[in-house]
Formats: sequence, C-alpha cells, structure tokens
Amino acid sequence: MKTIVICSGGLDSVSLAHMVARDHQLTGLISFDYGQRHRKELDYAALCAKRLGVPHDIIDLRPVGAVLTGSALTDDVDVPDGHYAEDSMRVTVVPNRNAIMLTVAFGAAAASGANAVATAVHGGDHFIYPDCRPEFTQAFETMQKHALDGYADVSLFTPFVHRSKADIVTEGARCETPFSQTWSCYKGGEYHCGRCGTCVERREAFHFANVKDPTIYEDPEFWVVATAHKEPA
Amino acid sequence: MKTIVICSGGLDSVSLAHMVARDHQLTGLISFDYGQRHRKELDYAALCAKRLGVPHDIIDLRPVGAVLTGSALTDDVDVPDGHYAEDSMRVTVVPNRNAIMLTVAFGAAAASGANAVATAVHGGDHFIYPDCRPEFTQAFETMQKHALDGYADVSLFTPFVHRSKADIVTEGARCETPFSQTWSCYKGGEYHCGRCGTCVERREAFHFANVKDPTIYEDPEFWVVATAHKEPA
Repeated sequence: MKTIVICSGGLDSVSLAHMVARDHQLTGLISFDYGQRHRKELDYAALCAKRLGVPHDIIDLRPVGAVLTGSALTDDVDVPDGHYAEDSMRVTVVPNRNAIMLTVAFGAAAASGANAVATAVHGGDHFIYPDCRPEFTQAFETMQKHALDGYADVSLFTPFVHRSKADIVTEGARCETPFSQTWSCYKGGEYHCGRCGTCVERREAFHFANVKDPTIYEDPEFWVVATAHKEPA
Repeated sequence: MKTIVICSGGLDSVSLAHMVARDHQLTGLISFDYGQRHRKELDYAALCAKRLGVPHDIIDLRPVGAVLTGSALTDDVDVPDGHYAEDSMRVTVVPNRNAIMLTVAFGAAAASGANAVATAVHGGDHFIYPDCRPEFTQAFETMQKHALDGYADVSLFTPFVHRSKADIVTEGARCETPFSQTWSCYKGGEYHCGRCGTCVERREAFHFANVKDPTIYEDPEFWVVATAHKEPA
C-alpha cells in the first residue's frame, strides 16, 4: 500500500510515519502551513522525512488560514492552559481544518499514484474535534470514493481513530520513533511549556503507556495537577 | 439562508450568484486561484461581486495546484478542441479540485456564520467530472455535517446538479445575469476561442435555451461541426 502520511511533526503523526514506514510502503510526508503561530513542528516533520528517506511536501495554506478566523491556533487569542478535553480548548478549533487538509492530501495522492492517505486522528480528539471522529473519517472516505471515481482509488488509513494517545506512544515505541524529535506544544517556545492542552496530553500519554518521556518541559509539574482527577480510559 | 457562492467568473457560477442574490441572502463570493493558465475569469468574478454589492475573497491555492499535476488547466499540456463530453477532455480534470474548493468554502462559511455554500455543478459535467455528480455532492454534505458537528450547520446548495447548462442559461436570463460579463474559455485570449470544450458547451447552451448569446467567438462556426451529431438531452 503506497501511503502518504499527513505529518505535522507532532508525536502522533511522526509515530504514524514510522509505523507506516515499517508495515507498509511510505511514499511521502505532507505537511500544512495554515498560519499556525509557530513553524517549529514543521521542522520536526522535515526531520522525520529525512530520517525515513522520503519526499516531504509542505503546502502553504496560509491564504486559507486567513479566512478561517477565530481560532487560537492562528489568531491573537491566548492559548488556554489546562487539560485538552475541557470546554476552554474549543477556542483551539480551526473550522474544517482536517477536512481541508485531507482533501488536499487526497488530491496529492491521486496525482502521485498513491493508494492511501494516513492520518493520526485518535480517540482522545473526539470530544473536541468533530473532524477527528470515526463518523467523520468514514463519511470522508465515502465522499472521496465518489470524488475520484474512475480516476484514482485512494483509501483513508486511520489506525488510531479508536485508540488513545497512550496507545500511540506504545505503538510509536514499538516502531522506534525518536520521541524527542517530535513537537506537541501549542506555544512554540524553546522547550515544551508543559501547561497547554497538548503538553498535558503528551505527558499523560507517556505516563499511561509506561514509556519514558524524553521531553523537556518548562513546567514539569503542571500536568500532575491538571490530570489529578483523571483515570486512564 | 445566508449563502456564500463559489464563483469562478464563468457563466454557470455568475448566473448562480445572481439567482442566490434574488432568491436568498447572498453574503459573499469566494473564488480560487489554483494556478489556472489565465486569471481572466477571476476578473469577471470580481465584477460580479461588485455588481451585487457583496465581499469577494480570492483564495490563493497555487501551492495546492502545484501538487495536483498532470492537468491541462494548470500544466503545459495542450487544451484539446472539441466537445466537452469526449474522452479527450479528461486531461482537463484536476484531481479532487471540487472537493478541495468546497472544504475551504465550508470552512469560510463556518467562520463567517453563513448557512450555506452554493456551487454551480450541473448535469452536463457528470460524464467527465466525478466530483460534480449528485452522489458526490450528497456524500460531501454528509461528510461536512460530521466535520462541523456542534460548531456550525452549513448546507450545500446545488440547484443545477440535475439540470443542463441550457437550464442555467434560462435561469440566468430570468435573473437578468449579464452574460457578456462572464468567461468560459479555457484558453484565456482576448475573446472566447469558440473551439475548446467550454466554448462549444457555452454556445450550445444558449442555442438550446433559445437565449441570444452575446459572446464574441474567434471561431464562431466551430461548434456547429462539433455538435452536429447531438440533440438536446
């Protein structure tokens, strides 16, 4: 299965790239610059492509990002601290972002003769992001079958859609993913802040997976407070 | 129904914009520059927005167009002459173009509080373009309901999906669309060439609709030969 992986440079998608490289035929990584506040994660995506020896396309979607206003990831709204699955994190939603990235990736796959697009959406994202849910990914694949009918046959590969982020860490470790070469923090400082939603979620995932977390956090203790009330799913 | 119309500046989408402006609440036009050979049609889209007094977003998708290679509309392949519904016109297919433009338009609609995105796909496009067929538009709308669940409720408005291009001319005339202020030709010369697929289709549509065609064609007789074997559907 010739597969293009949508890779942000984050823990999930870099682990996915390593998994696809081991189990399938990885033909390339595709990343999107939609005007996020920092491009640090894209550097880690480029590193991943180099490490795995495949082409890397960074597609400039900043003109699209400009019309998708109202999100903390692209606008001047403060990124909230706290656990990812809280209502306050709804301001991090960029409307239709996954759908847009996926349609572009499917076009690239069709043009390059790939059979699949892989994306690292996972169960932990369902609460906040409707376009990470299985109902969405299934409807998306159906839509694409019609859109490319007669021209290309591209599948959507979402191995983590029913899994937790801790499961991704487990799988990533199995595929020898260098986790220190991945970036999660929304804030894009020198080190992971340890306080934003993705940092808290990242620490928690390593904890539940019982895998050593090589990440340096500016505030290493914050997640203990933020997740004190939670048990693994 | 607050509606954004995807407007290329062509006969179909400009007619649609006039129809929506008359029957619904037109809140804006959105156009896409995906690296097509000429931008002439975009000028007509801008004129349409000005005429109807609504904002116009031209979204630069050239970085996306660059990965969707192999099409005569964006690459250095010759645009074929002849009727649209011939196999030779398959080289004009840009893989996943409609799906990409629609997802971006839905993101823009969600961000701006619009209730609908309107697109002028029509029955005459079904043979060549899978992403203009009713099966696609229905699957697309279903996908979007899931993608925006809880954040926005945006419908896909495709009044021409079961109609012919001649029906669009009839409807456009009823809404007083200034057809001379629309552009169809793939070649982007000073006048419509009269020979490419969209020119032949355009002349034919006016003929079958029994509406005077105000277009100046460089080769006004070509369509007679190209369509001599055809009867209206």
